[in-house]
Amino acid sequence: MTGSPDIPWPTGCAFVDGGFRPIEDATLSILDMGVTRGDSTYDVVHVWKGHFYRLDDHLDRFANSVAQLRLDLGRSRDELTDILHEVVRRTGLRDAFVSMNCTRGRVPIGSRDLRIARNTFYCYAIPFVWINTQDQQAVGTSMWISDMPRIPPESVDPTVKNYHWLDMDMALLEAYDHDATMVLLRDQQGNLTEGPGYNVFALVDGHWLTPVAGALQGITRQSVLELVVETGGIVRETLLTAEELLRADEVFVCSTAGGIMPVSRINNGPVGDGCPGPVTTELRDRYWARHDDPTWSTPVRY
Amino acid sequence: MTGSPDIPWPTGCAFVDGGFRPIEDATLSILDMGVTRGDSTYDVVHVWKGHFYRLDDHLDRFANSVAQLRLDLGRSRDELTDILHEVVRRTGLRDAFVSMNCTRGRVPIGSRDLRIARNTFYCYAIPFVWINTQDQQAVGTSMWISDMPRIPPESVDPTVKNYHWLDMDMALLEAYDHDATMVLLRDQQGNLTEGPGYNVFALVDGHWLTPVAGALQGITRQSVLELVVETGGIVRETLLTAEELLRADEVFVCSTAGGIMPVSRINNGPVGDGCPGPVTTELRDRYWARHDDPTWSTPVRY
Repeated sequence: MTGSPDIPWPTGCAFVDGGFRPIEDATLSILDMGVTRGDSTYDVVHVWKGHFYRLDDHLDRFANSVAQLRLDLGRSRDELTDILHEVVRRTGLRDAFVSMNCTRGRVPIGSRDLRIARNTFYCYAIPFVWINTQDQQAVGTSMWISDMPRIPPESVDPTVKNYHWLDMDMALLEAYDHDATMVLLRDQQGNLTEGPGYNVFALVDGHWLTPVAGALQGITRQSVLELVVETGGIVRETLLTAEELLRADEVFVCSTAGGIMPVSRINNGPVGDGCPGPVTTELRDRYWARHDDPTWSTPVRY
Repeated sequence: MTGSPDIPWPTGCAFVDGGFRPIEDATLSILDMGVTRGDSTYDVVHVWKGHFYRLDDHLDRFANSVAQLRLDLGRSRDELTDILHEVVRRTGLRDAFVSMNCTRGRVPIGSRDLRIARNTFYCYAIPFVWINTQDQQAVGTSMWISDMPRIPPESVDPTVKNYHWLDMDMALLEAYDHDATMVLLRDQQGNLTEGPGYNVFALVDGHWLTPVAGALQGITRQSVLELVVETGGIVRETLLTAEELLRADEVFVCSTAGGIMPVSRINNGPVGDGCPGPVTTELRDRYWARHDDPTWSTPVRY
């Protein structure tokens, strides 16, 4: 789809190989080690009503991830910021999913030395992604607790955002077999961790609980931690067991891709009375209200 | 680089999006779940002196991997075979690295349902890849035993060949810091597993030992198991510890990308007398001799 001269690519714009192009033309070499080794990191910030949400926090996390993997973006933070604005501007989107990526890239032919790889940097903006649609959120979604252990933090650090999702995708296929649309993985000790792209919170005995380890330190998760405190609630980052989740009064997942999303069924049984809970709904309303607050939002330079 | 009309692409040929093209034009959408989730499998067969080596074994393993991940190649085994011949033919290469790949692909915009993803299939042939060059093999290479645990089989099945290599790449970067060019990862119990793209064998107290679990069931590894028996040696698939590796008389790694490659230093100390061992050299000679045997080789249809 082609838009106006000013807003050429409403279905998505990417910055790849040093230039801007429509999302459908944005590709990676099949020899890039981002493909052949999953050797890459990324971050996703969203734009809502024409504003980036917590852009600085995403830039901080991405910079840390890039450094942890010993990658080189080849761009300053200011240059990266300009590119993020520009990929959104070229779509004209007011609500967008904006991804920044760095891969190990390629080594010269005949070499296997990662140190001389030329790293690949790319970004893109596409329409806002809902892990659960707003219609699904109105009734809450169904979740399956998988027996497949999440890749342990000792092997691949989950706080460095990465594309090692095969465990999560296999668990998700298993969840479908059990009539659930979402999945949660446990660690090797049986404690809950995360699902594909989201953190989890459970209201147990009046307190919100969320896994303290083995999961991405989500920025939406961080927003939730703050929002619970703002509303006078109590929240603990702790070990969270399947048993606690199954007896929780309310459960939700949270992600940049959709915010706070209620879960109404787990392992084919209801959560609480089987409807999105009132505290979840209040937190969700406050989460979206925050997007109007300049403390957390940065206007896109359209 | 462009070759003759009959052999148009000597630097590599790919089959992508249903057509043949030069390797440098072979790309994957940045939205493909092979990129964004590492949700893919692959296999690599090599061509030596104009013949595929153990093609049927690679096709069997690839078919099993595709099925395990619930992917659909959209091609019959015969069609896949024809494509593999054709990507090699179009390079004119007599010695080649030939990769077949299937990724989860893409879901329609607005969906997250893996079941309706349109899977992506691609293949390519490039010049033969040596994990260690023949010059390096003449003196043997240096290896580091990493403390980073390999992603456990319970999370991602290593017998389904996959691109979850971030643990191995981070361990390899660590190996460089210790003046080694190769790395071996252990499992969570401390037993040796594999390195990036290779299995390991150690000659300990007169017997060859190789890890029984936690590693790819390599086809070159299978060749080694057979060759040791052929030469009257004893080989055991077992637990292999770092302590055993460090006191081994001979050590080698093996891979489709280079065959049998001697290791002469581990953790900055010599293996045996610090030179490639005589049994390793004999096995390597026999391995390459096998490539002339029609039992194991299939002529490429140039």
